[in-house]
Amino acid sequence: MADTLTPVEPVSVPAPASTPEPPANVILIIGDGMDDQQITMARNYLVGTTGRLRLDQMPMRGAVQIITLDENAPSKSIYVADSANSATSMATGVATSRGRIATTAGTDLDIPTIAEQVKAAGGRVGIVTTASVTDATPASFISHISIRMCEDPVMMVDALIRDRIPFGCPDDLKSNGGLGSISEQIADSDYDIILGGGAEHFARLSEDGSQSLFDRARQNGFQIMSSVDDLSGRNPESKVLGLFSLSTMPVRWRGEGGRIAELPEPSFLNRVSPYLGSATLPEPMKCENNPAFDGMPTLAQMTDAALSHLSRGTEEKTGFFLMIESASIDKESHARNPCGQIGELDQLNEALEAALAFAAANERTLVLVTADHGQAAQIIPTESLFAAFDVPIYSPGHIARLTLDDGGVMTINYATNRFPIAEHTGVNVPIFGNEPALGTLPTLLTQPELYQVMANHLGLPDAQ
Amino acid sequence: MADTLTPVEPVSVPAPASTPEPPANVILIIGDGMDDQQITMARNYLVGTTGRLRLDQMPMRGAVQIITLDENAPSKSIYVADSANSATSMATGVATSRGRIATTAGTDLDIPTIAEQVKAAGGRVGIVTTASVTDATPASFISHISIRMCEDPVMMVDALIRDRIPFGCPDDLKSNGGLGSISEQIADSDYDIILGGGAEHFARLSEDGSQSLFDRARQNGFQIMSSVDDLSGRNPESKVLGLFSLSTMPVRWRGEGGRIAELPEPSFLNRVSPYLGSATLPEPMKCENNPAFDGMPTLAQMTDAALSHLSRGTEEKTGFFLMIESASIDKESHARNPCGQIGELDQLNEALEAALAFAAANERTLVLVTADHGQAAQIIPTESLFAAFDVPIYSPGHIARLTLDDGGVMTINYATNRFPIAEHTGVNVPIFGNEPALGTLPTLLTQPELYQVMANHLGLPDAQ
Repeated sequence: MADTLTPVEPVSVPAPASTPEPPANVILIIGDGMDDQQITMARNYLVGTTGRLRLDQMPMRGAVQIITLDENAPSKSIYVADSANSATSMATGVATSRGRIATTAGTDLDIPTIAEQVKAAGGRVGIVTTASVTDATPASFISHISIRMCEDPVMMVDALIRDRIPFGCPDDLKSNGGLGSISEQIADSDYDIILGGGAEHFARLSEDGSQSLFDRARQNGFQIMSSVDDLSGRNPESKVLGLFSLSTMPVRWRGEGGRIAELPEPSFLNRVSPYLGSATLPEPMKCENNPAFDGMPTLAQMTDAALSHLSRGTEEKTGFFLMIESASIDKESHARNPCGQIGELDQLNEALEAALAFAAANERTLVLVTADHGQAAQIIPTESLFAAFDVPIYSPGHIARLTLDDGGVMTINYATNRFPIAEHTGVNVPIFGNEPALGTLPTLLTQPELYQVMANHLGLPDAQ
Repeated sequence: MADTLTPVEPVSVPAPASTPEPPANVILIIGDGMDDQQITMARNYLVGTTGRLRLDQMPMRGAVQIITLDENAPSKSIYVADSANSATSMATGVATSRGRIATTAGTDLDIPTIAEQVKAAGGRVGIVTTASVTDATPASFISHISIRMCEDPVMMVDALIRDRIPFGCPDDLKSNGGLGSISEQIADSDYDIILGGGAEHFARLSEDGSQSLFDRARQNGFQIMSSVDDLSGRNPESKVLGLFSLSTMPVRWRGEGGRIAELPEPSFLNRVSPYLGSATLPEPMKCENNPAFDGMPTLAQMTDAALSHLSRGTEEKTGFFLMIESASIDKESHARNPCGQIGELDQLNEALEAALAFAAANERTLVLVTADHGQAAQIIPTESLFAAFDVPIYSPGHIARLTLDDGGVMTINYATNRFPIAEHTGVNVPIFGNEPALGTLPTLLTQPELYQVMANHLGLPDAQ
């Protein structure tokens, strides 16, 4: 939708001469779907129950309550979010309904985002993700559209989700006065560095058929990258669009032989009565490297490149906003692949390490780590608490059993549905902050309030 | 087991004359099973998504990692705890195996508890719970036994769990040189005030058959109470044992007409194929008062009585340790009763309010709120994220759908098993603290480390 909720007013940053302070920066790291179950699962596997992940060592920890509105009755709450509405909350300070990208529930007005406000104030903006850069989380910071699936021009009209569900965003077509699809809005944008997957959405022709979106982006001043080697050849004078895979980037880890969670298999007698017979549970396994990840830049490498690009030029005193997403903690939970999740949470920790190293050398850099919503995976007992009853007791959902370094076996349960894709959950999510976060965040905040914390740190006026 | 891991040495507290400081007190509030899913569920229902529970307003928030050992191979981790081993961690600083009450994994040695150490140092101890006072959580602070089910003399030898599973604690019999069952240890103890349920365990005859445990407790100087009115008639010179129900105290709330979570009912076609037909989901409902709760003291009333009893006498400068447990957040999750859980989380908030009022008037009172382990309940989408596929998508477990004040419907999923009792989960749990906790707790600590935080605040020497 082209109308805007409230206009973004250009904001003048304090002139460098008037203040000796270095610029204020915000690095927001989002673990998609990274609630406490997913973190504990990764902690147990990666460093053991008494170990500490990098994020466990942050000085500030709090919780964030997700707010989701009903599209048809926005005064009514929905208790489980998707990544579109939750990222919109963080990017804009305004709660909306599921599937919406920086647009209002019910009324479809564009909501100014923190990325737009930082650019208007003369600052820089970076977006790093392991998803397609057109996916809901990154898109909510740098585009506006009524339906998250409208990722490129082909998906704007008469499209089908997974060959089945018709959708479209006709009001957002450029020919109808809109901003166009998400990839068009990115190609048209002035953001400084955008790294992730999603090349397929830029290989499409623009709405008017005149050029590919790669060409459009190039024409608009973007240096295009497609491999990890390109990152070192960054032109500091260009905007950068790095797309390292066709859609979501492959994940670092997978289960042994590609195994994911499986359904317990009840014996004949157990099918007759739940208290007879037995069930065969999936064999325990370790995680292994995912061959498809070979050649991908790590999230930490992309983070380093983005930080270097955003902080280039010592004379410039404009701060930056950098959003970094480890997207597949969520996607691999949907797919019931705990090893995929754990490897991506490890990637998030490495990216955090890079961000904290930057913050250590650049004061007034606020580093926040949070999740956008909860996910299905939960750690359940490997031996039921009620095993002594000596009847078969097992999950009605999909489980995976992981063998850990000390020989213990951790069981992960995915039982929100039996559909091929697991559901999100509605739990409040954790938030972690570095020193500048101490005393500035309450221990519980709503997701829209997180926007305000970041805007305050950056000195942006309240635009909402 | 009568042997002790390390002897509790009597500790002399600083003489009042040498220091003008008021005594240091610790109030530890345990929400049994109260992980972030259970808290979010209660927040949404009680105060709405943008509201704040009392515990959300605490200045310090962190997380606690649960540590559980394998009884047969204590170097190996177990990833989901029970209340016995997790309360033992908090009470003693020593990790143990499931089912154990302040005794070591594998070797069955008694481990000194913080309650014993406070008494040895001349301080006071209170225990308040909505469970039986002999239940795992309170028992771990004030008794030692190899199996949590050995709650009274009848349960020590040739007993059956739920008429099925044989168990016993013969080594702990007094006639074998042990400390006796949990209720005998309580009746024999010198703790200052113990309030909760579990009268049935004190109506039993002592191991030698000479007297009931009520008589034994009375003989040992306990004033016995059985009703809320008794609380106001407290003799300040006596020890107090208040038992307000036979076993677990009834909970405040229940589902409409006593309903709990139910299994979705697949239609005939849906039984034929998961992508055909439909499933009938449980009707949405509100929570209502549980008539069985009438006449029970609230957790806050018991808390007030305990605080008043522990702080009586202005000349005394000995501090106290008070453990307060809202036990049925856990028990009602086992029973798949979300309204029961929410009402008990509300009770915890009221007890916290009472504790904070005391702390406001008595500096050096550290108030901590945490959980012992995670529970099964999780908030899942009321409308599946994949509803657009137009095929039946629903939980394979039990669900309850609650109607909230704004008209929204919150769906709670219990899908860890299909046994009549749901399982715990292995998630790290939250911890909340008042001002004295700021800066003294890391943002992530292990459950045994929590013991050390409390012992330090109380000035107890490291007894482990």
